[in-house]
Amino acid sequence: MIAWLKRLVVGRPLRTDRLGETLLPKRLALPIFASDPLSSVAYATQEILLVLALGGLAYLYLTPWVALAVTVLLAVVTLSYRQVVRAYPSGGGSYEVASRNLGRRAGLVVAAALLVDYVMTVAVSVAAGVDNIISAVPALNPYRVALNILFVAVLTAMNLRGVRESGRAFAVPTYLFIAGVLAMVLAGLAEAALGRAPVAESAGWSVAAQHAGLTGLAVLLLALRAFASGCTALTGVEAISNGVPAFRAPKSENAARTLAAMGILAITMFAGLTAVALIARVHVAENPCDLSGFPGDCAAGAQRTVIAQVAAAVFGGPHSVGFYFVQATTALILILAANTAFNGFPLLGAILAEERFLPRQLHTRGDRLAYSNGILLLALIAGALIWAFEGSVTRLIQLYILGVFTSFTLSQAGMVRHWNRLLRAERDRLARRRLHRARAVNGAGALCTAAVLVVVLATKFTHGAYLVVIAMPLLYLMMSAIRRHYDRVSAELEPEPHGEVLPARVHAVVLVSRLHRPALRALAFARAGRPDTLTAVTVATSPDEARALQVRWVERGVPVPLAVLDSPYRDITGPILQYVRELRDGAPRDAVAVYIPEYVVGRWWEHLLHNQSALRLKARLLFQPQVMVISVPWQLHSRPEPAGAAATMGV
Amino acid sequence: MIAWLKRLVVGRPLRTDRLGETLLPKRLALPIFASDPLSSVAYATQEILLVLALGGLAYLYLTPWVALAVTVLLAVVTLSYRQVVRAYPSGGGSYEVASRNLGRRAGLVVAAALLVDYVMTVAVSVAAGVDNIISAVPALNPYRVALNILFVAVLTAMNLRGVRESGRAFAVPTYLFIAGVLAMVLAGLAEAALGRAPVAESAGWSVAAQHAGLTGLAVLLLALRAFASGCTALTGVEAISNGVPAFRAPKSENAARTLAAMGILAITMFAGLTAVALIARVHVAENPCDLSGFPGDCAAGAQRTVIAQVAAAVFGGPHSVGFYFVQATTALILILAANTAFNGFPLLGAILAEERFLPRQLHTRGDRLAYSNGILLLALIAGALIWAFEGSVTRLIQLYILGVFTSFTLSQAGMVRHWNRLLRAERDRLARRRLHRARAVNGAGALCTAAVLVVVLATKFTHGAYLVVIAMPLLYLMMSAIRRHYDRVSAELEPEPHGEVLPARVHAVVLVSRLHRPALRALAFARAGRPDTLTAVTVATSPDEARALQVRWVERGVPVPLAVLDSPYRDITGPILQYVRELRDGAPRDAVAVYIPEYVVGRWWEHLLHNQSALRLKARLLFQPQVMVISVPWQLHSRPEPAGAAATMGV
Repeated sequence: MIAWLKRLVVGRPLRTDRLGETLLPKRLALPIFASDPLSSVAYATQEILLVLALGGLAYLYLTPWVALAVTVLLAVVTLSYRQVVRAYPSGGGSYEVASRNLGRRAGLVVAAALLVDYVMTVAVSVAAGVDNIISAVPALNPYRVALNILFVAVLTAMNLRGVRESGRAFAVPTYLFIAGVLAMVLAGLAEAALGRAPVAESAGWSVAAQHAGLTGLAVLLLALRAFASGCTALTGVEAISNGVPAFRAPKSENAARTLAAMGILAITMFAGLTAVALIARVHVAENPCDLSGFPGDCAAGAQRTVIAQVAAAVFGGPHSVGFYFVQATTALILILAANTAFNGFPLLGAILAEERFLPRQLHTRGDRLAYSNGILLLALIAGALIWAFEGSVTRLIQLYILGVFTSFTLSQAGMVRHWNRLLRAERDRLARRRLHRARAVNGAGALCTAAVLVVVLATKFTHGAYLVVIAMPLLYLMMSAIRRHYDRVSAELEPEPHGEVLPARVHAVVLVSRLHRPALRALAFARAGRPDTLTAVTVATSPDEARALQVRWVERGVPVPLAVLDSPYRDITGPILQYVRELRDGAPRDAVAVYIPEYVVGRWWEHLLHNQSALRLKARLLFQPQVMVISVPWQLHSRPEPAGAAATMGV
Repeated sequence: MIAWLKRLVVGRPLRTDRLGETLLPKRLALPIFASDPLSSVAYATQEILLVLALGGLAYLYLTPWVALAVTVLLAVVTLSYRQVVRAYPSGGGSYEVASRNLGRRAGLVVAAALLVDYVMTVAVSVAAGVDNIISAVPALNPYRVALNILFVAVLTAMNLRGVRESGRAFAVPTYLFIAGVLAMVLAGLAEAALGRAPVAESAGWSVAAQHAGLTGLAVLLLALRAFASGCTALTGVEAISNGVPAFRAPKSENAARTLAAMGILAITMFAGLTAVALIARVHVAENPCDLSGFPGDCAAGAQRTVIAQVAAAVFGGPHSVGFYFVQATTALILILAANTAFNGFPLLGAILAEERFLPRQLHTRGDRLAYSNGILLLALIAGALIWAFEGSVTRLIQLYILGVFTSFTLSQAGMVRHWNRLLRAERDRLARRRLHRARAVNGAGALCTAAVLVVVLATKFTHGAYLVVIAMPLLYLMMSAIRRHYDRVSAELEPEPHGEVLPARVHAVVLVSRLHRPALRALAFARAGRPDTLTAVTVATSPDEARALQVRWVERGVPVPLAVLDSPYRDITGPILQYVRELRDGAPRDAVAVYIPEYVVGRWWEHLLHNQSALRLKARLLFQPQVMVISVPWQLHSRPEPAGAAATMGV
């Protein structure tokens, strides 16, 4: 039943030799890797407006300056990453750059940051996608969290199926989204130029300021906080640096060009959308009830997203074809952006597992050759986050970009070191000048992103980012501990030159509770092993039963001696462990083989009907030195072997 | 940590030979067995008044008649059970009577009824006890459910500790309760006789009738429903019949006398309390908001119980010493009544488990010689019920007496058969007359209780009793299925006269994933077993790793051939099962010994770090015929053996 359900969701298993890369031309690589960075255009402007509105509508005059700072940063980071893809074409991205240049610890910090970030990409993108769906169909508002979980589930199922051939499927919505947003921006600007500037539905609403009458420093802080929120526009820029191996040759050059195209598109779309939103006087607030003029029940209703309001204003209302087109492509590209994290997280997990920083299971490929465990882990954590934050983009976004900028900063710093190393070896003047220029770009990138990191930390810490500040070091410590454990085990298991010694003698012990066929079979199997000594052992938890067993044993003439162990406290494990220990007393090279007759039942509830104490006994026996534990199964006829069946023990 | 907590709650284990009965004199037996039936006095009157008030205060005139019917029934049932304890002194009670005389099925029905009933005794008694505590300290009302759960937990802990010597502890509160209630009744009647009749706090409150203007049949139905609720006074009457072996000799006679004393006390107290409640004009309603005159917030507040109102009226207000005395002893005896179910349920469970109608675990004695699993099961179910019904006595009581009267009816019917059988053998006229009389008593008991059963079923079905009507047959079916399973297994496991055949040859297979010490040790152990063939087997889930293993195998010169199994779908279990099957092809008498090297880790989280696929493999291997599965543990040095440690497998 469960197996059938799994086949339905996941599909039939694929052979290992089906594993292979298809290389991507630039026109497909752009949409695949750019859905994440471009999609953030859909919420970056909104987050700036939301923060500034906290001070009241008057502070919206800061918007162009904040947006300008974001676009400059976007340009710097894009330029920096163009150098990363040229220098590290293997696809390791920020993790590789930091590990190679700054050492294992910095690499682990980046890994922790990236893992957190992938989770947040899923949570924020899906939440923003649902937000835009609700903007188009407000009646869905009560099902916000359920819709979020549904999309996460669908993405999980798709990725468990290993939908690798999704390239083309990605390309269409991404291009449609780009076309839609650019058309909207151009139309909006054109209308404004013609004197019929678009007017948002919220243009007439006023906002109740949360922090009224700000002065000097407070205004700066508000602007910084708005900037920190706007920096979400930068998320996903590094995606291409992880995907260089998927490009056609010349890989690095093609990747760098795609990166440039992506940067230009992102800047244009973000700046354009912000401009039209300002022209149309879109007003938003964290809480709809702070908007005077908001129609209907502000506690139950939801505001339209900024992109939805702009689309409605430009294309003639929230029922126009243009509006629906923009909303549909926006929702779609946001969901696709979440999908990029479903590619990235399991891959990074598998790399970390291979380097033994994470459990090995993350490195095993599932039935469809995807890293299924990583996919499931990502879905679970992202789903839990969405559920905990009730699918609110504004609240989730507070946790988002801390990880992004941690990895930006460390990887750019790593690049500076990389160029320094090359500079030490390079003597040619022209080459040195090129290296100096490259170092300057990455140095500027590192400085900018570090500054942003500080701003983000300072302005968002109390709004939820502290969770990330806790989570990242925990992840780091966990990964270090796991690596230490694996290293220790690996050293311990290394074979010694002389090999393992053969046991001097083998003592066989057959555990018997009643004189039934499973016990007799275990005795027969034990005799077939030709041990040096062979004893049947029973624990007298009930003296009457033990006596009855002894009588039957003699009556039947079983050709093996039966030892009866006293157990005044009705404990089975203790006396047997004691007996096994005594067998080896003074003979440390002897081994003890403990035979346990087990019933194998067909139905899960039948387990409950047979004594489970042997399970514990078995676990404890495995802690004894020089012991082997032998299960001799007896298949009860109650049912043939089902898929999920298991064994229970009949001591 | 968990072990330490267990010791703290349960105490240190007791030796089996500490098991022994202490025989009870009548003066201790009465309070021990009578706490349950006498305690129901505390709520029986109240339930009658509550039901009648549904029709309006006018219908309270029916109370004396309903109470009279209940006392008559109480007398009949007491007389019937006096005959049971004489005829069946072994303490099997209703279950034994029904099984012996009406057959196994009737016995199982009684067992199901009694199990349900014990659960309800705990739920109702604890809830009623808490009700009376809240009557004395109304401020505790918001913590009603928590208090209920707390008392269930305390009772559970006490019984897990095996507090057998509680006889004396039981005697004092029961006698104090009897004294308190009798004194209250006498004082109330005396005050009334002297013309200063007590007046309850609710005497002036009017009740909003739920069913106003009842006529003919409807009035009869109301009376019947009140009677059905009043029959809760009969619960626990059978307790003495389960405890005969605990009496001093002459056991039956002493039990019968104690039963008579208990019956007289119960009738006196119930009738007296009802009379004084009527005199004092106690008015109650299911919902306090139906009472006009109820002080304070009727949604948040709670009415005082009838016994509390009577005590307050008789002894001079809800702050008098007499009031607190009655409330304290009432609460205490109700909790003690719940405790009798904690004795009865696990004992019945153990008897049923011994007769293989319930899982064996219910027959194992815990550290303190109590049937711990039964105690825990009872506590869980009763706790869940209390939680689901929010600790409301009135709602819980709807589920209560269906089981009681089912077992009453069947045991009395069984007794009639019992006397019929004796009559067939008896020729002496005098003896025959005695038997005829005895049969008449039990016949009358059977008819009365059957009639009440019908009334209860009819009047309470829709008020919650349907749950019991569902639960009892389910329990019956479950117990039959369990017995069938055990019987089938037992027949299957019966040794055959010629014994089990020795395997013709033994093929040893050692599962290897890497060339490390655990694998080498498993090889050494396998060689010590001197099998007819010995092969190391690895599954090539990753072709590269398999090749590396082969190279190391040759380099090291391991003296055992290594078989590499292809696994295009990266599945470990399938290829190994296939290999094992092929080994025995054409040689069904051969056996296969599969050696699995296992890591034993010390910390729970370390499990996650080692591949768990071998667990599944092991479970599947146990379904193969003629296979034994041998765990060869390798204890990692990471930590010494902790209490809860377990093994993980390293294939």
